Amino acid sequence: MQQIDVPAVPAATAMVNRFDPADAGLLPADDQALLARRREVLGDIYPLFYARPIHVVRGAGARLWDADGTEYLDAYNNVPAVGHANPRIATAVHEQLTRMNTHTRYLQDGIVAFAERFLQTHPEHLDRVIFSNSGSEANDLAITIAQWRTGNQGVIVTENAYHGTTGLLAGLSPENGPTMPLHPWVRTVPAPDTHRDGDRAGELFAAAITAAAADLDRHGFGLAALLLDSIMSTDGIFPGAPGMLVPAYRATHAAGGLVIADEVQPGVGRTGDAMWGFQRHTATEPPRPVGADPRLRADGHVDMVTCGKPLAGGLPIGTLVLGSALSDGYAEGHRYFNTFGGNPASIAAATAVLDEVQERGLVEHARDLGASLLQGIAERSAGSGLVADVRGAGLFIGVEMAGPAAGALASRVVNGLRARNVLISAVGSDGRVLKVRPPLVFTHEDADAFLDAYDSVLTTLQQEGPLS
Amino acid sequence: MQQIDVPAVPAATAMVNRFDPADAGLLPADDQALLARRREVLGDIYPLFYARPIHVVRGAGARLWDADGTEYLDAYNNVPAVGHANPRIATAVHEQLTRMNTHTRYLQDGIVAFAERFLQTHPEHLDRVIFSNSGSEANDLAITIAQWRTGNQGVIVTENAYHGTTGLLAGLSPENGPTMPLHPWVRTVPAPDTHRDGDRAGELFAAAITAAAADLDRHGFGLAALLLDSIMSTDGIFPGAPGMLVPAYRATHAAGGLVIADEVQPGVGRTGDAMWGFQRHTATEPPRPVGADPRLRADGHVDMVTCGKPLAGGLPIGTLVLGSALSDGYAEGHRYFNTFGGNPASIAAATAVLDEVQERGLVEHARDLGASLLQGIAERSAGSGLVADVRGAGLFIGVEMAGPAAGALASRVVNGLRARNVLISAVGSDGRVLKVRPPLVFTHEDADAFLDAYDSVLTTLQQEGPLS
Repeated sequence: MQQIDVPAVPAATAMVNRFDPADAGLLPADDQALLARRREVLGDIYPLFYARPIHVVRGAGARLWDADGTEYLDAYNNVPAVGHANPRIATAVHEQLTRMNTHTRYLQDGIVAFAERFLQTHPEHLDRVIFSNSGSEANDLAITIAQWRTGNQGVIVTENAYHGTTGLLAGLSPENGPTMPLHPWVRTVPAPDTHRDGDRAGELFAAAITAAAADLDRHGFGLAALLLDSIMSTDGIFPGAPGMLVPAYRATHAAGGLVIADEVQPGVGRTGDAMWGFQRHTATEPPRPVGADPRLRADGHVDMVTCGKPLAGGLPIGTLVLGSALSDGYAEGHRYFNTFGGNPASIAAATAVLDEVQERGLVEHARDLGASLLQGIAERSAGSGLVADVRGAGLFIGVEMAGPAAGALASRVVNGLRARNVLISAVGSDGRVLKVRPPLVFTHEDADAFLDAYDSVLTTLQQEGPLS
Repeated sequence: MQQIDVPAVPAATAMVNRFDPADAGLLPADDQALLARRREVLGDIYPLFYARPIHVVRGAGARLWDADGTEYLDAYNNVPAVGHANPRIATAVHEQLTRMNTHTRYLQDGIVAFAERFLQTHPEHLDRVIFSNSGSEANDLAITIAQWRTGNQGVIVTENAYHGTTGLLAGLSPENGPTMPLHPWVRTVPAPDTHRDGDRAGELFAAAITAAAADLDRHGFGLAALLLDSIMSTDGIFPGAPGMLVPAYRATHAAGGLVIADEVQPGVGRTGDAMWGFQRHTATEPPRPVGADPRLRADGHVDMVTCGKPLAGGLPIGTLVLGSALSDGYAEGHRYFNTFGGNPASIAAATAVLDEVQERGLVEHARDLGASLLQGIAERSAGSGLVADVRGAGLFIGVEMAGPAAGALASRVVNGLRARNVLISAVGSDGRVLKVRPPLVFTHEDADAFLDAYDSVLTTLQQEGPLS
């Protein structure tokens, strides 16, 4: 097996696992030609994954095939939560498109029926949904509503958070790197690092939020919201023990802000314990109103929930779920219309995904298979000297590499797996944490194949020794 | 035929042609039940169209059918540019979804092939495209890029412009009404009112831009961009004579800003003269570089073009087209990734739309049928005493109602046509301009049916006389 060069992470754009276009010569001739055409029309604004990018043409379940017929095991993508090329989605969308596909300014059945079912997967105090086309559009609106409701501007995010592409969100997504400045009213806090801080992580996280909120007050911004990926994926994947985030929610409410759970990464059953990542932390506590302020609906709970990626098999969709007092209050004085938001084709796809998740028991499957995969990764990592920590919830597993060059080591694992036709990526500010996040339809055989490849990469890396 | 009450426009939200939920009792029992369920889950944040909303279940060509089987003539929607339930779109999307639907971090053929064809419909100096999920996401990025490139913040829009839903765009969309404030660095200018100012409209518009840019300079913001719907739909639909907007483009460049053409409304051949609305104004002049500043590529031309609605039969998509110097320069120091942007299903739909537009000659069809429809409307309006001006380009026609209560009059026409099962809406700050914007597949028979209904409504209104 050929040794994989570790691509440098361009500091300006800070994206790990990024293809360097200067390496185009290493690709097969057909892919070089396609890549050249791609650069002519798209430029380099969308980086490709991997030292050697993959030219995908077909998928099924957790498998993808490239143009040469090579099969890949997808242990990375959450957009195809119910499997690549899921036939139920294809059929549902086709059927809808042969009838009509128009917008929410006409009465329609499908969007209402889906919204009812979708809200039933959320806690009772979250009883309204607003549809858009992406997690970005959902987060953008959530921040706007939080700023309106609190009268404050300030937003707290984690140190390496990523919450979306709009101008509003780019300014509160430090993962974009230093060339994309944060808004003056944004404060970052370290994610709860359970590897470093163990059981104290949640408490330290809450204290950091309280301090950041005080600093926002001191600067005259006040606190509008904590915007938090419930598994802190880009910070390094920190599921934590159930309940770990409750002190953070309480600290936010105590400082006058609202809690927005960004479920783009952990949502739709991925964490195995519940449909939504935040429910791992809050499920045991029924919401109680906080004090006399009706905007803080639920002690220790979340006020808004956003999602996107895994909802509809790759058809664009975004959801913002919130309480009726908040939603209806905003609607009284503001307009929100989104031409494609809630379009029947995306709703048909989302309905098919929900059918699959519920009928096939994919939440429980994520819990059980995830536990077994986590154990397998931990066993194969133990004693390798390469891995510092293995952590996860359901089918969302983070593997933190060890040592001072952990980021480069993670890149070698990612590209070593890619050379073995297994797809993952890496996260964290220096890319030191392997991100294992397969489609929910990942099978036991897929997990075994993953573990074999993982074992092989670790063995190779042990033989190769540290990079010079 | 029952008389239609004119719904008041709620000042806070300023949306014309809005259903008032207090009138739910006027609806059929089934629709009342669906509406009640809808409000339980969606609230009132997405207003419905018409004094009596329509419950659509099926469409074909320019026709829609409601749950009772009533047929409507759609003379309003541009999302189904190539017809409701276009079978070519349904088949293309289905075929793609049975293969795979993943993101732009893998090499893929479809997005490259579409981008090549799509860019060929644009002027040569615009040679890069960035995909997103909506016109909003495209405009949001265009503003961000313009602010980065110029180092300025200021943006000029028209007085009743609407450019999208994100926080960034809501603050430069005055059509949202007074409860949604504009950013401090936004200036509004009156749209070129060809009805009032005739041939001088373009020159006055350019002068207003120059003055607004000077004011932005005086406040320390500088000018980043003119963001302009090329037909100024929400201001009242002002196609103007070909070339009318060139002085505005030149004034923007002279003041150091970039020109962004928002083609969500006029794009994809609607105006009949060209694929894109701005080409009605610029097509006769080849771009020339302006001075030594490479960012101003093209004298009298546009620097960025955004689109959304009509591109893909209602599957969410947004496009930002720009020159490679601008795009590649931005990409050097910034990241842009959009999970669903350029997804294969939306690209398959957009490819099918482009096929239909080109193979069926829909641009020329829009030109020819639009001219005939415009003439028919003008003839039927003449002498009615109700209509002040009829104007249009291709299949985008504005009918400005006359008199001090022109807005209320327009609402009666919109709801009178709806009672005759013909769908249009109204625009302008007081809703005084009828917006006639049918799918491009509108037929001569559809046009005749529209004119009959329009004639009938005008006759009824003449008999009823002014509202008390």
